[in-house]
Amino acid sequence: MALEIERKFLMKNESWRGLAKGKHYRQGYLNQNKDATVRVRTIGEEGYLTIKGPNENGSRLEYEYTIPIRDAIEMLEKLSASPIVEKLRHVIPYEGFIWEVDEFLGENEGLIFAEIELEHPGQQFSLPPWIGREVTDDPRFYNSNLARNPYKLWKEGL
Amino acid sequence: MALEIERKFLMKNESWRGLAKGKHYRQGYLNQNKDATVRVRTIGEEGYLTIKGPNENGSRLEYEYTIPIRDAIEMLEKLSASPIVEKLRHVIPYEGFIWEVDEFLGENEGLIFAEIELEHPGQQFSLPPWIGREVTDDPRFYNSNLARNPYKLWKEGL
Repeated sequence: MALEIERKFLMKNESWRGLAKGKHYRQGYLNQNKDATVRVRTIGEEGYLTIKGPNENGSRLEYEYTIPIRDAIEMLEKLSASPIVEKLRHVIPYEGFIWEVDEFLGENEGLIFAEIELEHPGQQFSLPPWIGREVTDDPRFYNSNLARNPYKLWKEGL
Repeated sequence: MALEIERKFLMKNESWRGLAKGKHYRQGYLNQNKDATVRVRTIGEEGYLTIKGPNENGSRLEYEYTIPIRDAIEMLEKLSASPIVEKLRHVIPYEGFIWEVDEFLGENEGLIFAEIELEHPGQQFSLPPWIGREVTDDPRFYNSNLARNPYKLWKEGL
């Protein structure tokens, strides 16, 4: 188990491009239960199963296990409760922290945001020049919601 | 992945007792979604995470992974969507097949049934003298339902 403390930001401009190569992610959810989401994910040729507890003040319980890639693909195709979310993840270090820039594909194409993981809620960090408005508390950006209500369906925009 | 073909029976009498020692199981469900149940289980000092697809003609997709016992206990206590189901499982071989006799505890105390796993739906097997009525198709006996609607609440009896 681990407590996960994440903050999420929109991009300000395109200057992050070229700082990292993207890795291909496909993921789906075996349930839509917000008290314990169960995610199946492939990253390149690796499979993962992840359980996350409810979000409480930006922290949540998280458990992640590697599983055979065949199992992961089969669960995505046959058991996923929601459309599969696809993205390219770009991992960019900046002043001692790791930023993950997610560029979505498929039904969420056009959406790009960045996440940073902290060790404790009040931890200080520098904002890279390509980082824009914070959206940590906006539930539309939860990956589980991007499956149900993808970016292409948003009426109100970012 | 594996296809699971199970048949389930009530007990006819007590003559199965003493044929095997019981092992202590505790299990809960991270969701109540019948299209993909996610079960956390401890068996003695071992932890397991199991995903099962929908039941179709007595078969279903099943994936099981061992996880650290600490994770399993924490998920049972903090993330389980339902009351924890506890039972003693007695594994009894009979004429080339393995019978699992589940003797429930807690909210399901008083309920005992036996399961046999087959390799294909029409496979022949002998019924031990302690086996009674078949209940394979009765959803009340699904372990996921025994969490939500335990035996002590059943009005109509077996």
